[in-house]
Amino acid sequence: MKNQKPLILITNDDGVSAPGIRALIDTMKTIGEVIVVAPDKPQSAMGHAITINNTLYLNKISKENDTVTEYSCSGTPVDCVKLAVNEILKRKPDLCVSGINHGSNSSINVIYSGTMSAAVEAGIEGIPAIGFSLLDYDWNADFQQIQSFVKKIALETLEKKLPKGVVLNVNFPKLKEKDIKGIKICRQAKALWVEKFDKRKTPFGKDYYWLSGEFVNQDKGEDTDEWALENGYISVVPVQFDLTAHHTIQELNTWNLNG
Amino acid sequence: MKNQKPLILITNDDGVSAPGIRALIDTMKTIGEVIVVAPDKPQSAMGHAITINNTLYLNKISKENDTVTEYSCSGTPVDCVKLAVNEILKRKPDLCVSGINHGSNSSINVIYSGTMSAAVEAGIEGIPAIGFSLLDYDWNADFQQIQSFVKKIALETLEKKLPKGVVLNVNFPKLKEKDIKGIKICRQAKALWVEKFDKRKTPFGKDYYWLSGEFVNQDKGEDTDEWALENGYISVVPVQFDLTAHHTIQELNTWNLNG
Repeated sequence: MKNQKPLILITNDDGVSAPGIRALIDTMKTIGEVIVVAPDKPQSAMGHAITINNTLYLNKISKENDTVTEYSCSGTPVDCVKLAVNEILKRKPDLCVSGINHGSNSSINVIYSGTMSAAVEAGIEGIPAIGFSLLDYDWNADFQQIQSFVKKIALETLEKKLPKGVVLNVNFPKLKEKDIKGIKICRQAKALWVEKFDKRKTPFGKDYYWLSGEFVNQDKGEDTDEWALENGYISVVPVQFDLTAHHTIQELNTWNLNG
Repeated sequence: MKNQKPLILITNDDGVSAPGIRALIDTMKTIGEVIVVAPDKPQSAMGHAITINNTLYLNKISKENDTVTEYSCSGTPVDCVKLAVNEILKRKPDLCVSGINHGSNSSINVIYSGTMSAAVEAGIEGIPAIGFSLLDYDWNADFQQIQSFVKKIALETLEKKLPKGVVLNVNFPKLKEKDIKGIKICRQAKALWVEKFDKRKTPFGKDYYWLSGEFVNQDKGEDTDEWALENGYISVVPVQFDLTAHHTIQELNTWNLNG
């Protein structure tokens, strides 16, 4: 067992053919045995959605002799993790990595992100998990610049094990490898999207909307992921799925709810 | 201003015609001015999904003389909140209530729930928010038994204001009003779904899956939402959207990431 290669599950939300997941597969192949289960189409901003009112399809897309076994799935990123763990993998993976996302999942974006929700789902199932995102929405983003960092963070996670109930949200600045200053453990910056809906008319005269908006960072702290990324660092935020605001329970117990 | 009725935004994930939201509207009408913006179809288990690769439609479904203004929306519960705040409401609402969900959103369900994600989105936008759920999946569930509690919690939230960065996740046991023992402030129980995919064949011979599973409570604590509900109490969990596991930052700083 000691010399067994680690089993690594890979997924994403940009779809199985995205360059970001291809780069992640290339890196993880150098560390362990890799199984890919990823959406058959883009599933960005799906949050922690799961498919309960519809059927799910799973297609093996790799060939028999390929070094990596790959499946595409008709569902969401979270569906992919659930199907992988329950229907495909013979043992619990040693690591689940999600991404590399084309675009930022820093700060409040963690909550909308399919990439991060897949990692969180793995975490809920007791699998050490990391979501990786590059601050470049371009389909042809240069993932090569960050490959060595991705490998270092994955290896360190395999060795040190994550604290219980925690997964990692890793975001990379859009910089050349030599210009990246290092890796910082951060907290999630307090921020939000200020929406500006783009209202249009269909050719038939009916109003419709496109969601668009502007990211507003309300947080001046120098210990946040936004600060790290703006200053040339890779941000690593430990993310938990116990959403309880424990520090507010005492205050809420003073409310008059049982009078 | 002092005598102005509170403005209350109502949404849900079961769709605008669900009995649960109808019950919530009836109760909130007795407290304030009500605007409804809810999905035009069921959107359960959508988590914090938003619609970014598709268009959104908004239809006013109430008549001019109705006491409550209602819109249906083609998007997710989170889309509904974003559209309401940015395109419909003239001022920031004093309260956003989501539900009443047909079925539990206790424990880890909070993370998959469209009902709770709508409340969380309102919270991110600085609006006091509550998600309500009844532990009865039946379309004809008896919401009348919990109306007085819904009103009490909403009034107390309007009066006391929520702690910053927190929304409330309220779950009701399926009991008669007289048998409900009271309201308990709780933490989210540690639990997960153990999946059992139901594998079938299409009429054309292709495999497909239905996601199903069993809820497993791993938490024996008597301060959890699961304990409260099993023992006849209404559970109220303060939920935060800063997902940072602050208590693990020190440990992660001992990792060898910049060597």
